[in-house]
Amino acid sequence: MSETKAKPSDNPSIGEYLIRRLQDYGVADVFGIPGDYVLSFYTMLEESSLNTVGCTREDCAGFAADAYARVRGMGALCVTYCVGGLSVCNSIAGAYAEKSPVVMITGSPGMRERIHNPLLHHMVRNFRTQFDVFEKLCVAGTELNDPQTAFREIDRVLAACQRFKRPVYIEIPRDMVHVRPEIQLKIEVKPPQSDSRALAEAVEEAAQQIEAARQPVFLLGVEIHRFGLQGEVLQLAEASGIPMTATMLGKGVVAETHPLYMGLYEGALGQEEVTKYVESSDCVVMLGTFMTDINLGIYTAELSISDCIYATSEQLRIRHHHYHDVRLEDFLRELAERGLNVRQPLPPAPTDWNKAPFSLKAEAPIKITRLIDRLDEQLEDKTIVIADIGDALFASTELTTHGHTEFLSPAYYTSMGFAVPASLGAQVARPDARVVAIVGDGAFQMTGLEFSSLVSRHMPVIVIVLNNGGYGTERLLHPGEYEFNNIPNWQYDKLPALLGGGTGYQIRTEGEFDTALNAAWQDMAGPSILNVHLDREDCSQALKRLAERMSKTV
Amino acid sequence: MSETKAKPSDNPSIGEYLIRRLQDYGVADVFGIPGDYVLSFYTMLEESSLNTVGCTREDCAGFAADAYARVRGMGALCVTYCVGGLSVCNSIAGAYAEKSPVVMITGSPGMRERIHNPLLHHMVRNFRTQFDVFEKLCVAGTELNDPQTAFREIDRVLAACQRFKRPVYIEIPRDMVHVRPEIQLKIEVKPPQSDSRALAEAVEEAAQQIEAARQPVFLLGVEIHRFGLQGEVLQLAEASGIPMTATMLGKGVVAETHPLYMGLYEGALGQEEVTKYVESSDCVVMLGTFMTDINLGIYTAELSISDCIYATSEQLRIRHHHYHDVRLEDFLRELAERGLNVRQPLPPAPTDWNKAPFSLKAEAPIKITRLIDRLDEQLEDKTIVIADIGDALFASTELTTHGHTEFLSPAYYTSMGFAVPASLGAQVARPDARVVAIVGDGAFQMTGLEFSSLVSRHMPVIVIVLNNGGYGTERLLHPGEYEFNNIPNWQYDKLPALLGGGTGYQIRTEGEFDTALNAAWQDMAGPSILNVHLDREDCSQALKRLAERMSKTV
Repeated sequence: MSETKAKPSDNPSIGEYLIRRLQDYGVADVFGIPGDYVLSFYTMLEESSLNTVGCTREDCAGFAADAYARVRGMGALCVTYCVGGLSVCNSIAGAYAEKSPVVMITGSPGMRERIHNPLLHHMVRNFRTQFDVFEKLCVAGTELNDPQTAFREIDRVLAACQRFKRPVYIEIPRDMVHVRPEIQLKIEVKPPQSDSRALAEAVEEAAQQIEAARQPVFLLGVEIHRFGLQGEVLQLAEASGIPMTATMLGKGVVAETHPLYMGLYEGALGQEEVTKYVESSDCVVMLGTFMTDINLGIYTAELSISDCIYATSEQLRIRHHHYHDVRLEDFLRELAERGLNVRQPLPPAPTDWNKAPFSLKAEAPIKITRLIDRLDEQLEDKTIVIADIGDALFASTELTTHGHTEFLSPAYYTSMGFAVPASLGAQVARPDARVVAIVGDGAFQMTGLEFSSLVSRHMPVIVIVLNNGGYGTERLLHPGEYEFNNIPNWQYDKLPALLGGGTGYQIRTEGEFDTALNAAWQDMAGPSILNVHLDREDCSQALKRLAERMSKTV
Repeated sequence: MSETKAKPSDNPSIGEYLIRRLQDYGVADVFGIPGDYVLSFYTMLEESSLNTVGCTREDCAGFAADAYARVRGMGALCVTYCVGGLSVCNSIAGAYAEKSPVVMITGSPGMRERIHNPLLHHMVRNFRTQFDVFEKLCVAGTELNDPQTAFREIDRVLAACQRFKRPVYIEIPRDMVHVRPEIQLKIEVKPPQSDSRALAEAVEEAAQQIEAARQPVFLLGVEIHRFGLQGEVLQLAEASGIPMTATMLGKGVVAETHPLYMGLYEGALGQEEVTKYVESSDCVVMLGTFMTDINLGIYTAELSISDCIYATSEQLRIRHHHYHDVRLEDFLRELAERGLNVRQPLPPAPTDWNKAPFSLKAEAPIKITRLIDRLDEQLEDKTIVIADIGDALFASTELTTHGHTEFLSPAYYTSMGFAVPASLGAQVARPDARVVAIVGDGAFQMTGLEFSSLVSRHMPVIVIVLNNGGYGTERLLHPGEYEFNNIPNWQYDKLPALLGGGTGYQIRTEGEFDTALNAAWQDMAGPSILNVHLDREDCSQALKRLAERMSKTV
């Protein structure tokens, strides 16, 4: 760390420095809603080369920034104090749980306004309340209330965001935005290094265990995507011929058309052949995998820890012992460099999961599995599929991600209402992508009006509403006729009339879905919304199996 | 406190006890959205004599419960773990800031599921995260994880809600809902008593100071309503002839048609005659008033503390000294009993603020002040007016509340999006009331789709959307052409087509407003939505004055 005394005029203001550093990390767009405590910084944003993207609600801005971060490596949102900030708690919590690197920026009352602790508007308990709340939901946070430390704090917090792939919190009192610190600390934030001897021992032990195994298998998680380690994983698999599978949250980390890919592993909820193959393995190599309940089929997974290698950004465990200070990136890179010398022939894996071509029954009432089969045919390299929670997620796991298809879903935290605002974030992050959002009607009623932003930005996102008149997953979890699982029936296809743009389709048959999907796919002028009427009882096989398991604990 | 050992079968389950105690406090309806961790309790709710009211989003359920609490004395909502709970942070924070007694009930993973600290869905950091967050936003909280203490904890937390008029947090692990504790503690929670000698001294000192004053005045705040002390206040004023004024948050605590009422006091932002009268008083008696920035006209108020009596539920201050352990209720009751013997004639107060009758100019473009003047004529005894933030609030302060007219607004915390969900809460709380919600277009885009619940429940709420294409208050706070203050233009009057119910009106002139308001007032079959096109530059006088003040600190 070196310190240089700069002339005051050389230095950027605190606000300018934050903008500059966001750009260093590849952030080009900031989602949010202005408010008086953040107006100074918001104005600075609008005048900078960063692009501000307004949303209807703050939590939608949070979901959009999360999706943006998943696609681009870091995302940001900017909201006002408390009324704005406390409205994004759930979005930020989801980003924390699922490791999405989101920078939450918020304004706050100026330091000069705080004398004698007055009751300023938007205040809850004291000036610290919002900070205290986000301390629980972020991996790092700072209040930029001191010009002497502001640059260093910005550097520290953004570095934590990148390193841990988790949200961080930056609060700027409104009278600090234009302050130019006199001292500029040039910081080089060095990422922590692996312990080289532990690393070497871990790589050698893992390699030997894999090489000695009768039936090794790679079980891939979402961290492979977050840390950009797809290349290393493919190198390892292709050189050794070891087959790959992925968790639900990790769906799409490698192209599902890859000849060594077996499909998702979801314990008793998944494809039987994959489950069997993984559970009879004598060496499951879990790479970047979260061991969460839904991810592992509500713990129906039967993996023997004694045979597992478990490598994530948070821990490296081989059988029952742990290596400390070994970074996931280093471990995978070194393992790939060393290579795996698999001598014995491996048992054939169920990688041939190509489906039969879809054949349309135009008059048949549309069903969720048929909808997914038809949609699967449409997916292209540049498609980003975003699945909301419920059968939108479970059914979508049957989709096949291609080369660069991305699949985004809050599959662990499982917060409803992610998909539509996330489609805005994904489309902003990658303007040339084709974004398809699949969302249940209950989730749509929570955040679906963010469709408005797609309309005003002429984004050709396709939103598929699975309309079954209620909270379908809950109906299955907790059988019985409960009124609380039913919701009002909106005419989703009439949304464009309210918003003054976009195109709506009403769908009851396979033929209508086919026609609408084709039309929507051709339509690059703006978003489309497909109101798909499903039978109340209809659901995917995965959901049916899940519900059978979960209903025992509800 | 007495302890009785009851036979297990005599005892209610923890869930049943919670329901029973809510009813004891007058709660008849619970707002919310079910989710798997709360399904057991939600089912118990639906089967109980409590009424469950589903909402589109959790934060809307929070706002609805808040409004319900303001009208009925206590409100409740029930949501699932984290994805539900963390979505209501902002609503609960507003209830905390503005003293609304809301009980937040949430489910959580069962105690049996937590062994070995697994990663369960909806978890953020650990099992305690949600509790930690709400500890910052509530006045009391509990996790009902121990049958031995569960009843006592429920009693303690609900008593705190009632006493402090602030939100509380109750978390039920899902496997505790049906547990029947073997020991039943019969608790009598005694409210804390005033120190009788301090009380007597305070009452006497206050009385003498008021009696000796040349020009005493009562400045009333919202706590008079929260603690049900309107009777005492009126008795004091009527017996002494001392005039009354109120803060913005306290608007409507006494009928504004009362002959001793002068209108709102808002410092430099308010009516000049009222400001002058209050600020030249030598004894301002502030009763249940929050000294907040917006409440006091962004500190343009010039009140001399040396001459003030300041009595709230949190402190009692006369001039520069404080009395501890004197409860607001006791102070006001005793003061009213003692009576005020005002001997000298008081200077005439500006209580004659009756407006000239409204005369319609049918062809004139509608303006916000004219809209408010016309609406003012329509208000009845049973009207509940709910004003959202921005000019919806500032302009509405010009409305005249009658006998039992209620005026609800988040005038201190100033969170946008309160009004529409609050109208649901208010209508549920008082089915025979006529509820009118006034909301800006920006706020409407945040939560206005809760109109859906009004449609499905056939509630004749009238929603007036002030449509000026953006965040109008911000445009004034921070002049300049900033794109971020503009929002997409929705065809609000077409919302009924999306939702399949309700009636929409499009309004550009005074005549159209008059016609629509009359029609909506006649229409008891369901909600109405009035899309009022306002000029972008149009705003109330109060907002204009406010913006002039605030723009200096933004």
